[in-house]
Amino acid sequence: MSYFEGIAPIAFEGADSDNPLAFHHYNPDEIVMGKRMEEHLRFAVAYWHSFAWEGGDPFGGRTFDRPWFDGGAEAARVKADAAFDMFRILGTPYFCFHDVDVRPEGADFAENTRNLNAIVDIFEEKMEQGGPKLLWGTANMFSHRRYMSGAATNPDPDVFAFGAATVKTCLDATKRLGGENYVLWGGREGYETLLNTDMGTELDHLARFLHLVVDYKHKIGFEGAILIEPKPQEPTKHQYDYDVATVYGFLKKYGLENEVKLNLEQGHAILAGHSFEHEIALAQSLGVFGSIDMNRNDYQSGWDTDQFPNNVPEVALAYYHIVKGGGFTTGGTNFDAKLRRQSLDAEDLVAAHVGGMDVCARGFKAAVAMLEDGGMEAALADRYAGWNGADAQNMLKTETLEDIEARVLRDGLNPTPISGRQEKLENWVNRFV
Amino acid sequence: MSYFEGIAPIAFEGADSDNPLAFHHYNPDEIVMGKRMEEHLRFAVAYWHSFAWEGGDPFGGRTFDRPWFDGGAEAARVKADAAFDMFRILGTPYFCFHDVDVRPEGADFAENTRNLNAIVDIFEEKMEQGGPKLLWGTANMFSHRRYMSGAATNPDPDVFAFGAATVKTCLDATKRLGGENYVLWGGREGYETLLNTDMGTELDHLARFLHLVVDYKHKIGFEGAILIEPKPQEPTKHQYDYDVATVYGFLKKYGLENEVKLNLEQGHAILAGHSFEHEIALAQSLGVFGSIDMNRNDYQSGWDTDQFPNNVPEVALAYYHIVKGGGFTTGGTNFDAKLRRQSLDAEDLVAAHVGGMDVCARGFKAAVAMLEDGGMEAALADRYAGWNGADAQNMLKTETLEDIEARVLRDGLNPTPISGRQEKLENWVNRFV
Amino acid sequence: MSYFEGIAPIAFEGADSDNPLAFHHYNPDEIVMGKRMEEHLRFAVAYWHSFAWEGGDPFGGRTFDRPWFDGGAEAARVKADAAFDMFRILGTPYFCFHDVDVRPEGADFAENTRNLNAIVDIFEEKMEQGGPKLLWGTANMFSHRRYMSGAATNPDPDVFAFGAATVKTCLDATKRLGGENYVLWGGREGYETLLNTDMGTELDHLARFLHLVVDYKHKIGFEGAILIEPKPQEPTKHQYDYDVATVYGFLKKYGLENEVKLNLEQGHAILAGHSFEHEIALAQSLGVFGSIDMNRNDYQSGWDTDQFPNNVPEVALAYYHIVKGGGFTTGGTNFDAKLRRQSLDAEDLVAAHVGGMDVCARGFKAAVAMLEDGGMEAALADRYAGWNGADAQNMLKTETLEDIEARVLRDGLNPTPISGRQEKLENWVNRFV
Amino acid sequence: MSYFEGIAPIAFEGADSDNPLAFHHYNPDEIVMGKRMEEHLRFAVAYWHSFAWEGGDPFGGRTFDRPWFDGGAEAARVKADAAFDMFRILGTPYFCFHDVDVRPEGADFAENTRNLNAIVDIFEEKMEQGGPKLLWGTANMFSHRRYMSGAATNPDPDVFAFGAATVKTCLDATKRLGGENYVLWGGREGYETLLNTDMGTELDHLARFLHLVVDYKHKIGFEGAILIEPKPQEPTKHQYDYDVATVYGFLKKYGLENEVKLNLEQGHAILAGHSFEHEIALAQSLGVFGSIDMNRNDYQSGWDTDQFPNNVPEVALAYYHIVKGGGFTTGGTNFDAKLRRQSLDAEDLVAAHVGGMDVCARGFKAAVAMLEDGGMEAALADRYAGWNGADAQNMLKTETLEDIEARVLRDGLNPTPISGRQEKLENWVNRFV
Repeated sequence: MSYFEGIAPIAFEGADSDNPLAFHHYNPDEIVMGKRMEEHLRFAVAYWHSFAWEGGDPFGGRTFDRPWFDGGAEAARVKADAAFDMFRILGTPYFCFHDVDVRPEGADFAENTRNLNAIVDIFEEKMEQGGPKLLWGTANMFSHRRYMSGAATNPDPDVFAFGAATVKTCLDATKRLGGENYVLWGGREGYETLLNTDMGTELDHLARFLHLVVDYKHKIGFEGAILIEPKPQEPTKHQYDYDVATVYGFLKKYGLENEVKLNLEQGHAILAGHSFEHEIALAQSLGVFGSIDMNRNDYQSGWDTDQFPNNVPEVALAYYHIVKGGGFTTGGTNFDAKLRRQSLDAEDLVAAHVGGMDVCARGFKAAVAMLEDGGMEAALADRYAGWNGADAQNMLKTETLEDIEARVLRDGLNPTPISGRQEKLENWVNRFV
Repeated sequence: MSYFEGIAPIAFEGADSDNPLAFHHYNPDEIVMGKRMEEHLRFAVAYWHSFAWEGGDPFGGRTFDRPWFDGGAEAARVKADAAFDMFRILGTPYFCFHDVDVRPEGADFAENTRNLNAIVDIFEEKMEQGGPKLLWGTANMFSHRRYMSGAATNPDPDVFAFGAATVKTCLDATKRLGGENYVLWGGREGYETLLNTDMGTELDHLARFLHLVVDYKHKIGFEGAILIEPKPQEPTKHQYDYDVATVYGFLKKYGLENEVKLNLEQGHAILAGHSFEHEIALAQSLGVFGSIDMNRNDYQSGWDTDQFPNNVPEVALAYYHIVKGGGFTTGGTNFDAKLRRQSLDAEDLVAAHVGGMDVCARGFKAAVAMLEDGGMEAALADRYAGWNGADAQNMLKTETLEDIEARVLRDGLNPTPISGRQEKLENWVNRFV
Repeated sequence: MSYFEGIAPIAFEGADSDNPLAFHHYNPDEIVMGKRMEEHLRFAVAYWHSFAWEGGDPFGGRTFDRPWFDGGAEAARVKADAAFDMFRILGTPYFCFHDVDVRPEGADFAENTRNLNAIVDIFEEKMEQGGPKLLWGTANMFSHRRYMSGAATNPDPDVFAFGAATVKTCLDATKRLGGENYVLWGGREGYETLLNTDMGTELDHLARFLHLVVDYKHKIGFEGAILIEPKPQEPTKHQYDYDVATVYGFLKKYGLENEVKLNLEQGHAILAGHSFEHEIALAQSLGVFGSIDMNRNDYQSGWDTDQFPNNVPEVALAYYHIVKGGGFTTGGTNFDAKLRRQSLDAEDLVAAHVGGMDVCARGFKAAVAMLEDGGMEAALADRYAGWNGADAQNMLKTETLEDIEARVLRDGLNPTPISGRQEKLENWVNRFV
Repeated sequence: MSYFEGIAPIAFEGADSDNPLAFHHYNPDEIVMGKRMEEHLRFAVAYWHSFAWEGGDPFGGRTFDRPWFDGGAEAARVKADAAFDMFRILGTPYFCFHDVDVRPEGADFAENTRNLNAIVDIFEEKMEQGGPKLLWGTANMFSHRRYMSGAATNPDPDVFAFGAATVKTCLDATKRLGGENYVLWGGREGYETLLNTDMGTELDHLARFLHLVVDYKHKIGFEGAILIEPKPQEPTKHQYDYDVATVYGFLKKYGLENEVKLNLEQGHAILAGHSFEHEIALAQSLGVFGSIDMNRNDYQSGWDTDQFPNNVPEVALAYYHIVKGGGFTTGGTNFDAKLRRQSLDAEDLVAAHVGGMDVCARGFKAAVAMLEDGGMEAALADRYAGWNGADAQNMLKTETLEDIEARVLRDGLNPTPISGRQEKLENWVNRFV
């Protein structure tokens, strides 16, 4: 019997429906800007939160009661059945996973690899039978105690080696399953205390690790993108992949800026003191935007709450910058969001995704409407129009400080401030959300 | 009559003195690591907080009652007399200033320049008579309303021009006064709302501005360092010079990483979610450490409190990384710290600096003792010792992911975690502070 | 000539209008739950932010250029003309003011009082001619330097006296103008450092001050509510009126809980670590809800940003708890919100209010729709239904711990957790916003 | 063989010792203010963090490898042996525990009670043989899934009953072991979302629960204090016992303010936006101070880090307010602090406590020195001296607002601000730490 027994595939019923298990806004086949909405949003379900997480938090243990917990290979298969069942119910075109989400833990590297490959066989079969595609694969190098002091940045080179070998197997699996990206989230690549840490050495090791991955990707002909996922802290006190700007400087220093792109997460942006749209817009302007983990962080909780998104105006601004930058290529919208630990039931899991997909669809459609209206782009063009003048262009290209001073004196330049019109722009946005 | 009438020059009286206007720990002539303490710490007084700030905050106006407020050229001279009088009382070897701290505001660029040069004449005279040296000069491009939307990143190119010309005059003044550095703090280089902002263009303009400054520095033969001072936000919602990692990426992108170094401030580090020692250690490891603004931020106030430092254990860790990296070259310890607005009296101003200098001296001496003991360096060397092995070195240089996987399988690598010993290291630090 | 020359009274044009100076959602005459929308929302404009604030921030001075800055009595009249002109354009039924917003600063208490009364004469006249009513008056006891260490909690009893006399004059003025409430915001009632503060004594003085105000209110027959406005900090490091729970404990301790109610502000709630709806719901459940200051705080700026509200889902939850509790009685929706300092123009000021009023109208209508649907109330009733049982009621009334233990053992009570359904409720809310 | 094999009892060796397993500052027998230091500080070890916590965090599992994990009754005995062995090594006079820390989890309430009583038998024996005393006992009503939606505030009355019965057994055990206090920490008494929460009802239930506990305490003649432990959030989004002020208001509302006192924790104070000394001073001034959980929270991590204290200046200010208020009566200094999860070894556990005890001893001695010097008290007395005058006293007792206004006018009161001297007081504190 299916874990989701009694829950029918979710249909689009429109905004007026009061069916909690229907889409009110997400209509995969609706054509927007010449393409199906499904192909724009490229939704993916995260295996870890939805099928591997047990409902624990720092002060309490498992609350969920899934039939696949506490088992080995057979439980992994039961879990896979449930997962693909839910993918079918939701109609999501993609999923994502870490190795440890899908396989039993082995006694050593060899057994881990065998266990991973066994479940990949199953996935392959399910995907051939019409299951979703793989948006990205990744290796969990933060939960096992061997990684407690980091993987690539561990003081023990054997841990670096174990991690490197593990990424190889996960990249192999991702390629085999036709994954469109491979993600590295360095949750333990950082430090708990600077007192026992050699930051310069650790950063060098992290860069070496990435070069190894990039080289191997090319060797095996994996055509997906390699993505880094920034987060400022938690679990680590300081994480080296702090935010977009930090990761960009790191990639640039080590000559990786053309090989690696970024997977951005709303919750991680918030923890780093940024809005999600800031991180997206910055990554776009630096040419390193890749994909997103869609969720929301409670602004008033100082840890990663990974909640399902529910605020349409915020989601709209995120998609605005994605669509403005040309939309996703290899990337997509992965729900790195989890149920609250009191939401125990199968129906909660489905309803949470349905709500999240609807919020994204509303945000996306608002973003498209804003771009089609063009009001914000026109205001921007107008605000910076002065830079198109000859003096301004000379200043950017040929003038020296002395030339500029002479011009200021000669022309008596004494600029008058011009309104930034923030409230009017905010009101304009509110017309669309 | 001196504003500090009745306050004698501050003498070193030792730890047991209960004289609030004596140094208990700062002894400029004490030899530490072969050099006078004064030459290690290189204290500077900030003109702005100590002589130009009026005691206002967002909810209230001026509380201080200095005789030099509300005047023009004559008041600027009275202020300079008071400032140099306090420098003499404290015996600080350096001071720092913005143009607007020292000169009356003019009606236009030309008058500003004349006003600046007039006060520089006075400074020159006072410095020749034995006053302190200039640690750095800088232009205030954030207080006047013309800069409300940025200086280098203003949408109006005339503001860029006005700012560029102003920096030229300030760099000229700094050179003339023998300044050892020139600082740029981009308080308005950022945005209030992304809705009206073209980040990519603004970052290009910011880089252009810096190139202009660097070129001019070389042209006039200014030998000091050009320093950028990171801050994440406030006054601006997002500031482009967010933190050390962000600035490094920016410098690297625009080819400025060998021309520009950083001036780091404790309070700005805190606002960016970092410890001060993190920012210092990172700047050291990236080769861009320049100077420090010593103060403290209230961890529980979300704005820049710029208080005088008073926590010796924290200050000790900051100096540990400075001294470990070789100490200051052109940089120093500038007190970018201000009185609380209820601290009205001349004596408060002197006492605050005396306390701050003593806290720094204690922290510095503890840092030196820790380095001389060598316990933390030994623990570090031991922790990373595995990387000296042949396999580890090969892994960093020649092995591929496949080689590493083969080795993991062949040797059955299954690393066991090793204690990070954080508490023991913290206890060790407490032996010295 | 009017400062708002060329701006016509704002009309309701409906959601499809793209006129930035029209209401798209706020229709004062629309009947909702049997009452005009205007009478539900009871909008008020705040004199201070809209007419007295000059656009300064901690790093920069005045940016606005209003014709009434820098003057005495005549400027106060020009300001009042502009203010009432904007009230007319917006059609807001109320306004609010501090004494210092409306009168020139005098040399002493007597002159302050004369200045206040002169402007109250003008207000009275304008109000008789059809101007808005006064939602509340208040005394600014935080901006002048005499109050730097507090008003009621100042270590100097003369400051307490000065503040008490000032409140008397403001309460007199409020009564004379038919004000419906009188507000006390204790921005300086707290401390900068515990080192120089006797908290117990200061709290006693604060309570005494309130008792004086309450006694006087009764004596003169002022029938409005006395309201306290909680805020955790800023300008003060710690403010005694921290949040709703803190103020309630204070009122209860000093026997004031039936005399004083609360004026709640979104931005202050955020700074205290709460959602706005939390503070409203808690005040409702404690019987001390009075009025609201509607604005928004940037979640990522640690200071009071006082921005105009722009997030409908958040505003809807606030009004949900207000309407559920019976709506406003003496209170209303005061825009304690200010323009960004780059928003220089008269039109910005009008547009900001228009947008804010529309956001509130949308939030209010969504709140009403949610209540009329009843879905959330039904879910609540169901969740707590177990408490209606006899055993549960006995447990609340008569059983002892021993009785309960015996019952647990006898009945083998071993409760099974039940889903909290958070995501489904969030999805439900999204149907209405 | 002891888990702490090879670690000798910790001896006091003085500040110059470099033995990491010696006390450098804590000398239990040193007489301070007429009493042994041990009797002032009343150190307790927390069973949970030191013996039950496995080293997990939200992103990773167990890192520690204690021989007593994963077992039933026999493992509980092995754990108790190790715990009492460490108490002996440290010489701490007290310990604290939750029921679940010490007993195996049973299938139902009856089995839990049997398991608890079995381990209490063992404790009793060990305590008779010279083990430490019990500072306080408590029930863990937050980890088991039955409590996921609260214990006293659960929507299901059977959970309230289960929790009530459990507290009864824990209070029985605490009394039997001579415990000097009983603590309630309501980690799940609050909400995850207001959408599914009836705050008023839940607060009523919480108060009822406390009344049941207080009644039972009196019935059985337990003479210790009942203590509530405030925390603002985590694990719950909002916790009803937010901070001292909130708990006081709650106790006052429900008539419990004379029956219940507070157990204050540094980390919880920080999370609520307060300094530890603020919470202590406020509890002292409200008459509800009871005991402390000594630890430290990382100011830059938004969750409860529960680290061992290491900053002497901060700890000194906490003890300053404790000693000033008369010191502990039933309370003490419980180390609610845990190892970092990378600190794997038995020696780390001992060293962490040794360092923590030394930091407390230094802080305590500094606090005593400050009080004996009297400088801060004298400054306070001076600052508030004006309130001793006749006019000031009349104003507090008999004058009305009209009287005060008349006096302000008659005497022309126009108070001049007086310096708050914050920096001088901070410098003064630094003389002692």
